[in-house]
Amino acid sequence: MKNILIIGAGKSSAALIKYLLDNSEKENLFLTIGDISIENANKLINHHKNATAIVFDVFDKNQRTKEIQKADIVVSMLPARFHIEVAKDCLKFSKNMVTASYVSNEMKALDTQVKEKKLVFMNEIGVDPGLDHMSAMKIIDRIRENNAKMLLFESFTGGLVAPESDNNLWNYKFTWNPRNVVLAGQGGAAMFIQEGTYKYIPYHKLFRRTEFLKINNAKFEAYANRDSLKYRNAYGLEKIPTMYRGTIRKVGFSRAWNIFVQLGMTDDSYTIEGSENMSYRDFVNLFLAYSPSDSVELKLRSYLKIDQDDVMWEKLLELDLFNPNKKIGVKNATPAKMLQRILEDSWTLQQNDKDMIVMQHLFGYEINGEKKQMESNLVVLGENQTYTAMAKTVGLPLAIATLKILKEEIKTPGVQIPISKEVYIPILKELEAYGIQFTEREVPYLGYNPNHVIG
Amino acid sequence: MKNILIIGAGKSSAALIKYLLDNSEKENLFLTIGDISIENANKLINHHKNATAIVFDVFDKNQRTKEIQKADIVVSMLPARFHIEVAKDCLKFSKNMVTASYVSNEMKALDTQVKEKKLVFMNEIGVDPGLDHMSAMKIIDRIRENNAKMLLFESFTGGLVAPESDNNLWNYKFTWNPRNVVLAGQGGAAMFIQEGTYKYIPYHKLFRRTEFLKINNAKFEAYANRDSLKYRNAYGLEKIPTMYRGTIRKVGFSRAWNIFVQLGMTDDSYTIEGSENMSYRDFVNLFLAYSPSDSVELKLRSYLKIDQDDVMWEKLLELDLFNPNKKIGVKNATPAKMLQRILEDSWTLQQNDKDMIVMQHLFGYEINGEKKQMESNLVVLGENQTYTAMAKTVGLPLAIATLKILKEEIKTPGVQIPISKEVYIPILKELEAYGIQFTEREVPYLGYNPNHVIG
Repeated sequence: MKNILIIGAGKSSAALIKYLLDNSEKENLFLTIGDISIENANKLINHHKNATAIVFDVFDKNQRTKEIQKADIVVSMLPARFHIEVAKDCLKFSKNMVTASYVSNEMKALDTQVKEKKLVFMNEIGVDPGLDHMSAMKIIDRIRENNAKMLLFESFTGGLVAPESDNNLWNYKFTWNPRNVVLAGQGGAAMFIQEGTYKYIPYHKLFRRTEFLKINNAKFEAYANRDSLKYRNAYGLEKIPTMYRGTIRKVGFSRAWNIFVQLGMTDDSYTIEGSENMSYRDFVNLFLAYSPSDSVELKLRSYLKIDQDDVMWEKLLELDLFNPNKKIGVKNATPAKMLQRILEDSWTLQQNDKDMIVMQHLFGYEINGEKKQMESNLVVLGENQTYTAMAKTVGLPLAIATLKILKEEIKTPGVQIPISKEVYIPILKELEAYGIQFTEREVPYLGYNPNHVIG
Repeated sequence: MKNILIIGAGKSSAALIKYLLDNSEKENLFLTIGDISIENANKLINHHKNATAIVFDVFDKNQRTKEIQKADIVVSMLPARFHIEVAKDCLKFSKNMVTASYVSNEMKALDTQVKEKKLVFMNEIGVDPGLDHMSAMKIIDRIRENNAKMLLFESFTGGLVAPESDNNLWNYKFTWNPRNVVLAGQGGAAMFIQEGTYKYIPYHKLFRRTEFLKINNAKFEAYANRDSLKYRNAYGLEKIPTMYRGTIRKVGFSRAWNIFVQLGMTDDSYTIEGSENMSYRDFVNLFLAYSPSDSVELKLRSYLKIDQDDVMWEKLLELDLFNPNKKIGVKNATPAKMLQRILEDSWTLQQNDKDMIVMQHLFGYEINGEKKQMESNLVVLGENQTYTAMAKTVGLPLAIATLKILKEEIKTPGVQIPISKEVYIPILKELEAYGIQFTEREVPYLGYNPNHVIG
């Protein structure tokens, strides 16, 4: 019996646990699922004999070391900042480890020791990061093997609501952690490179610098991710003239979201005195000039120059933003927390709502003096509120990787992300059986300056 | 002989040192002026027999303790973050201390020990903070002594170029640390209270939410300071419905400065690869969308919606912002440092330029059921490049306080700011002899809602 310790049984663990339980007989697996609360874990286990749920506190050192010692591999689904404690124990007791989170500097620093012990610490193997790395590297490697030169790489991912459940003016609901949505884009200027020129967008302009894209004839928009430059090294694209990564939304979302950014409502750096007793209307008024007589509505329209007939206004009304009676009800909240509270009223997934993951990569390259462009698209729909598209695209790559590491089919040691053939070929292949399949097509080369125009 | 140790002989020390030297015979003073470089100190001493310049490194613990032990009082003109080391030694050897900087939490924490040793640690006794505290408290105390109730306090200060030297389109030159000007307003939302309502302005909107003010018939504008709320306690105005502090500029400055903010040019949080070889034009283009054919000028106009005939455009041209040949020449610079470099070309004070300090306080109060308003204005002009208005308004309050503490005319112990009568009455009185004199006048009550209009 191979023991798998899964720490954290949140939303994204459903597809992970299902895959491993479905394979547990054949592969002789036993799952221990640890969480602060075992209710959700027990629901996911559903009395399966090859799994048990335990109350688990990652800060309880005794318990942590005991459980990690018993395991053959550890999957950490904790918030990213807690992985390092687990990682240090995994290193100490020579256990492999899997996470869906970005490699922190602390994690990276363990690389030499991890390699010495011939362990695999696989990170960034969810959807974004994860599936994006694997699907991109598959095509980048192929292009390079044909002796072509990469000119452009653009990659876009979005967690959205499925078309059948898309019934609000924002074309958006929270299919993932609402807090991350409210804070998205903060923490520094967005950086990317286009035709060899570095470009920087400050946070307060991010949602006004979107690009349009088409996936299966549906139109979307995307805003730039924080740092599009950092994967140039990992992907071996150090000298690529154009590299851009972005987050997908339905068209019109970003322009309306920009209102919150402009007002200062997404600020998470200070708390508001008396936030719990403020109405939605009071909250809006905090960010507008004082007037003894003008309405909050008119002050806002005038401040941000919103025309009478602009659909953005309807979006604000849909959120009931000017309601003087609805209370925020959260004490000592930051503006971002207050906004989140208001949005949750309108954007929480309903019982029968389904979500959707969309991804698009664009690859520009030159072969035999000719410029070509390739597009790779993915659309995944959620099945229900448990097996959401998000849970599947995060959980299945994690689960497949976990089993393949356990079976030593993935064995190159080190603190790593899924960019090697050993990793992405078998995982992408197996994901196809679950409907997670990219469609590729050649498109005319667009680049950013196909005709070499000089301005 | 009383020994005064002055640490730091920068721009603002000129008036401080002159005052103390002018009084050194009569008051029996000897000044030791320590700086990393003694050149400037020697210039300011000009062979006066009652002073000496020494090379002084605040991080050299032996030297620091030796010099502080020899002194009767220590004036620290160092950057604010270095005061604490000096303060700890002053406490240890029972020496009084004077600074023009904001009271840090570390400094505040010394209060009990400072009181136990009956020492005076006077802080925030320059111009802003300093002169603003003293001149405001003088009138606030008087209003309260008349049993009137404070309704409104607004306070504005600006370091500007004198009218006779005001010869560029921005009506602005660097009369103080350019870096502070470029970074002004950053670090969190501006906060104030108006008619009992808290108001918050995010940095990216700060320069579009200015207010106009008139001082001696000249029109100015002001943008909100970071935290107008924190002095409510110190001033005893805990329940005041309106409190606002701002920074004064000539009309039109903020609207044009906002262009830099919107573009992201004032960001000091990341460095630009290859900054040293970039032209001013390249720098601008970093913040604009890529285009193979459109000019940097048109992209900027379109992005920020600058009309053909908007004077803001002339202001940008005056800075030579689109010059493709002028190089930044600073390695690994942040956007803020690159912008500072460009501005220094145009905004550095010339040989005969003079500066100006302007300050305005507004006091609204209710007495016998009647609402009244009082205005207090100050304009100070610089004499030359050494005895600037800034150096005088910073250095003279510091110098006068230093001498009065030495003579035990100011003796209430503690870590403090100049808000007590013992401090502000004699200092304001003496400042008048140096032309630093506020003019007060009663004006019609304006407040923010004089007619109790309900919107």
